[in-house]
Amino acid sequence: MVPKTTTPTEFRALCRSNQFTDNSSGYASGFAQANILILPKEIASDFELLCKRNPVPCPLLGKTILGSATQLSCDYLIKDDNFDLRKDLPKYRIFENGELLSEKADVLSEWDMSSHIGFLIGCSFSFENALCKAGLTPRNMVENKNVSMYQTKKHLDPAGIFTNTTYVVSMRPYKPEDIETVRDVTRAFTKTHGEPIDWGYEAIERLGICDINIPEYGEPISIHPGEIPVFWGCGVTTQVAALKVSCKIRGKIMSHSPGHMLILDIKDSELNRDISSL
Amino acid sequence: MVPKTTTPTEFRALCRSNQFTDNSSGYASGFAQANILILPKEIASDFELLCKRNPVPCPLLGKTILGSATQLSCDYLIKDDNFDLRKDLPKYRIFENGELLSEKADVLSEWDMSSHIGFLIGCSFSFENALCKAGLTPRNMVENKNVSMYQTKKHLDPAGIFTNTTYVVSMRPYKPEDIETVRDVTRAFTKTHGEPIDWGYEAIERLGICDINIPEYGEPISIHPGEIPVFWGCGVTTQVAALKVSCKIRGKIMSHSPGHMLILDIKDSELNRDISSL
Repeated sequence: MVPKTTTPTEFRALCRSNQFTDNSSGYASGFAQANILILPKEIASDFELLCKRNPVPCPLLGKTILGSATQLSCDYLIKDDNFDLRKDLPKYRIFENGELLSEKADVLSEWDMSSHIGFLIGCSFSFENALCKAGLTPRNMVENKNVSMYQTKKHLDPAGIFTNTTYVVSMRPYKPEDIETVRDVTRAFTKTHGEPIDWGYEAIERLGICDINIPEYGEPISIHPGEIPVFWGCGVTTQVAALKVSCKIRGKIMSHSPGHMLILDIKDSELNRDISSL
Repeated sequence: MVPKTTTPTEFRALCRSNQFTDNSSGYASGFAQANILILPKEIASDFELLCKRNPVPCPLLGKTILGSATQLSCDYLIKDDNFDLRKDLPKYRIFENGELLSEKADVLSEWDMSSHIGFLIGCSFSFENALCKAGLTPRNMVENKNVSMYQTKKHLDPAGIFTNTTYVVSMRPYKPEDIETVRDVTRAFTKTHGEPIDWGYEAIERLGICDINIPEYGEPISIHPGEIPVFWGCGVTTQVAALKVSCKIRGKIMSHSPGHMLILDIKDSELNRDISSL
């Protein structure tokens, strides 16, 4: 039994030795967790540009250096000599030609050193803690469920091979009178999607969501009478984008298994500190 | 008569002394030109966040330091001891409560030192030169007209007071077989809108453009048989966004008069050099 209070270093060591393969939610509280996407180099620069052009759904935190699964471009994210992105997640998904091939506890045999680059993408776990502290605990946490996520028809601005990519959004219901506080609380989390991208029942049609009761990802959560849905950019956008292009390219694509994130050595508060860097 | 080959320093000096109040197009060729927006401090941080969340329509290059019209946060953009953002543009527009008050050659009496901050925003003149060099001269240059610009219904991701902001796009027609080259040529211009955000006749409906023959800004340009419209993010987005919120705030908003830009001391090629900085 791994205690929730484990440190990021201990947590990753347990993942690395395959002793922990569970959901990372709630572990090493206060430390940032990252979505992971591992792509062949031929589409890596297009993906990086996609993130730069669309930082709200795709907040890129860092990447591995080509030829290494252990060295990051931003070395302040992980300070651990034993770090290895092929092993340090609880669980991985492996895709080829747009199909899920398998789920595994490491990607040692899949990672091609001559080609693969791992990308770290911000995750909304960060701002959920801040909402709790403000007395606005997200419904998914109250109901102990995965957040509801929807495929929208809102297009990202394209980048190279990534055309026709659309936003995936996460949804948390709030009362209309709380919207401005919810916006204020999440605004500063610029590396983890920031403030909502839209809200209200009219936003369902504006975003092109098929059915608010049937999220495409995660689990349905209840919207109480008097509440409205509030939508945030979601890191699943990057996975959907990568899968869509995987039919056009050779080689495997890997990602974290949903909810099985990389725990970083940097706190949520530090990650989002550089809101103004111009 | 000011020669087109004037240096940026000479050009700004002529503006500063009100000897030049014309369109800046074609002057100091090779040097970047910037859109200007001058906002009261109460909405400045929201505007900066809007730009960070939506870098394609709103590529923020730099800003003045509060209390100064002569000092920029990014001092490599202008290297000129005499620089003064209240005087160095050929022509300004002054707005209040969403209304155009006047057009003037300087904003010395409007700029409030205790409040105003000037923002420099990238301009697509940069990539038009690159398209010419690639043998893909934009139709607006061939016809010697201002580029066609359209109001769309595509929403920017909101930031603070800036909600319900929608993209303005510029349009240049190309043959379908040239699209990938056009995308490749403009991709690197990340500080000046980069590659197109959409293309094809079906994009007109997707973007929510009312009538392709009636641009809301600029001039109509011809689309020849066999060509399709190609749309880029446009800096006018920032002006429309600022005007929309100006009813909610006190104080004046200033901008460059359309086509009357600030000429920078940095070349287009240098401005867009840091495509990969992660």
